[in-house]
Amino acid sequence: MTSRVHVGLSDRAYDIFIGRSTAEHLGDALAAGGKVTHAVLISDSNVRPLHGERLCAELRERVDRVDALTFPAGERSKSLTQFAELCEQMLRLGADRRTLVVACGGGVVGDLAGYVAASFARGVRFLQVPTTLLADVDSSVGGKVGVNLPGAKNMVGAFWQPAAVLIAIDDLATLPDREYRAGLAEVVKYGVILDEEFFAYLEAHVAEIDARDPAVLEQIVTRCCRLKADVVEQDEREETGLRAVLNYGHTFCHAIEAETEYGAFLHGEAVAIGMLCASRLAERRGMVDAETTRRQQQLLEQLKLPVACPGLELPRLLAAMMRDKKVAHGRLRLVLPTRMGHVELVGDVPEAEVLEAWGPALNVS
Amino acid sequence: MTSRVHVGLSDRAYDIFIGRSTAEHLGDALAAGGKVTHAVLISDSNVRPLHGERLCAELRERVDRVDALTFPAGERSKSLTQFAELCEQMLRLGADRRTLVVACGGGVVGDLAGYVAASFARGVRFLQVPTTLLADVDSSVGGKVGVNLPGAKNMVGAFWQPAAVLIAIDDLATLPDREYRAGLAEVVKYGVILDEEFFAYLEAHVAEIDARDPAVLEQIVTRCCRLKADVVEQDEREETGLRAVLNYGHTFCHAIEAETEYGAFLHGEAVAIGMLCASRLAERRGMVDAETTRRQQQLLEQLKLPVACPGLELPRLLAAMMRDKKVAHGRLRLVLPTRMGHVELVGDVPEAEVLEAWGPALNVS
Repeated sequence: MTSRVHVGLSDRAYDIFIGRSTAEHLGDALAAGGKVTHAVLISDSNVRPLHGERLCAELRERVDRVDALTFPAGERSKSLTQFAELCEQMLRLGADRRTLVVACGGGVVGDLAGYVAASFARGVRFLQVPTTLLADVDSSVGGKVGVNLPGAKNMVGAFWQPAAVLIAIDDLATLPDREYRAGLAEVVKYGVILDEEFFAYLEAHVAEIDARDPAVLEQIVTRCCRLKADVVEQDEREETGLRAVLNYGHTFCHAIEAETEYGAFLHGEAVAIGMLCASRLAERRGMVDAETTRRQQQLLEQLKLPVACPGLELPRLLAAMMRDKKVAHGRLRLVLPTRMGHVELVGDVPEAEVLEAWGPALNVS
Repeated sequence: MTSRVHVGLSDRAYDIFIGRSTAEHLGDALAAGGKVTHAVLISDSNVRPLHGERLCAELRERVDRVDALTFPAGERSKSLTQFAELCEQMLRLGADRRTLVVACGGGVVGDLAGYVAASFARGVRFLQVPTTLLADVDSSVGGKVGVNLPGAKNMVGAFWQPAAVLIAIDDLATLPDREYRAGLAEVVKYGVILDEEFFAYLEAHVAEIDARDPAVLEQIVTRCCRLKADVVEQDEREETGLRAVLNYGHTFCHAIEAETEYGAFLHGEAVAIGMLCASRLAERRGMVDAETTRRQQQLLEQLKLPVACPGLELPRLLAAMMRDKKVAHGRLRLVLPTRMGHVELVGDVPEAEVLEAWGPALNVS
């Protein structure tokens, strides 16, 4: 049981190796980066004991010198302060432009360590070794790396493609239930935005997903990576608008996260709520039928994801939406579904319609 | 009197416009960046009153909204702390991914503002408007942007090409004498590494260079930009070794700068000393004749540049050299001349030869 997804980006092309363990494909992944004599594994305080130590040992079998850096787990570490600290630690380790960075962890680790790789010595090679479902299917693929500014998520960063991505399905077995389910929200998103057949597959496999069946998980992760790779191949730097489809639900989601100071909801949970807001907005604009929203809500509920965020304040949510990176020349642009499996980027959405779309998510008794 | 140098980098191609004033080509430079509704001019406390205000006024005639950010002049500002501060200021100005950054100043401004442009919202367009000779012929062309880490110059950054470079020869009239001459060291470098004919032109025009003759300066700046563009076109990311030729003298130079804590010498002055060290090393290895070193020393002295740095300590200089970014897998690599107009990247230079090459620069009575 093993899959490979190729991300075709000319001189920045790379493979995503999906197996049961990292050991299966570590050799292939390292070979993709060229000669490696020094590797620096970067992970956080949660991941280091769970997966980092084992990966370090595996790396030491193949690389002359392996160092490891660890930072405190949590979104707060995705800051320019932590970025500077890691860069200085890299320098003290004697890292140079041939050093390989190995990002081992969830989305925060991949984004932060990836940005260190993009920036140290103006860019060194790096491996993404995601250890959460969310990172497997989303943040580890596509080269988006970066950190937050106070009040603005992912506002500083780069597009920096890894030399390879190494996904170990068995790592998902130890993932806390809530984090696992948060990852499933992004999985559902791929079905809604790009692949009706895949959405139906998910509807038909709720039990196996609940049980974290490795064969089903491998199917799911592989399909999501392929779907994301297709998009990234066509719009690496989010310039044509195509890559923006991946942000379905995310403008609403980022507003929820900002308003709750990234404390009340995991990213995937906020995505679940945000997708339903976006789908309802599309309904109100006559772009999509009610059934499309209903199927999303049903699947998300079956996967035990939140579908509302009662108590948040509408004016503050709206203000947060306007700070989103997708705002171009001060106008709100949103990704909205036109049918199950297809979305479009819509510019100039009237504020009144956005207000209405939030309603059901906020007014829950 | 006006020139244009095209930098052919496929989808990152751009033009360098060289005229007497910025106003001459500002329209062309802005057009190169696509539709611009918001520009943020970034300059330092020295340049802002000299050139920044005028450029802001010129920008306001063509762009709806123009903001300006200023940071304290000096190499110390090329830090991750100042970088973070500028990114947060950009956010407070409501900048988004369509904002145009205009870097107006010398090398520090171009490197720092360019790195902000490379990183904010994962990269926005930017114009380089260099105001020193050093920036005209070197740092504004080629897309190298970044900041220093404590003890390591340019250790964090990116390759991020500008949408256009706008050079105003008249800006050089107000440049302090020492800064002007420091810029000339990089000019001499282009002759040594790539163009014997140009080196001879410089030897023949010392008087006009001394007088800052605009016609001669335009010739010189245009030729240097063309030479640098040729190299950058062939090795944008310093991967093949070709771009490394631009670092002739720079491994020695960076050691001098680090040892004097960037206080005793301007960058160009340290380059002058460094080139002579490198040329002497090449002599000792039998790669080049003594005449090649002699011509460099004579021209640099005629241009009133320092050719020695007595009093610095050899072991500390050597240690600083080993921290250079060109050190690959722990081995020292140096760019050395083989004849006037040609250099080569030499790996594995024995430490003893490097020690000897420093000698004449340190032991001056």
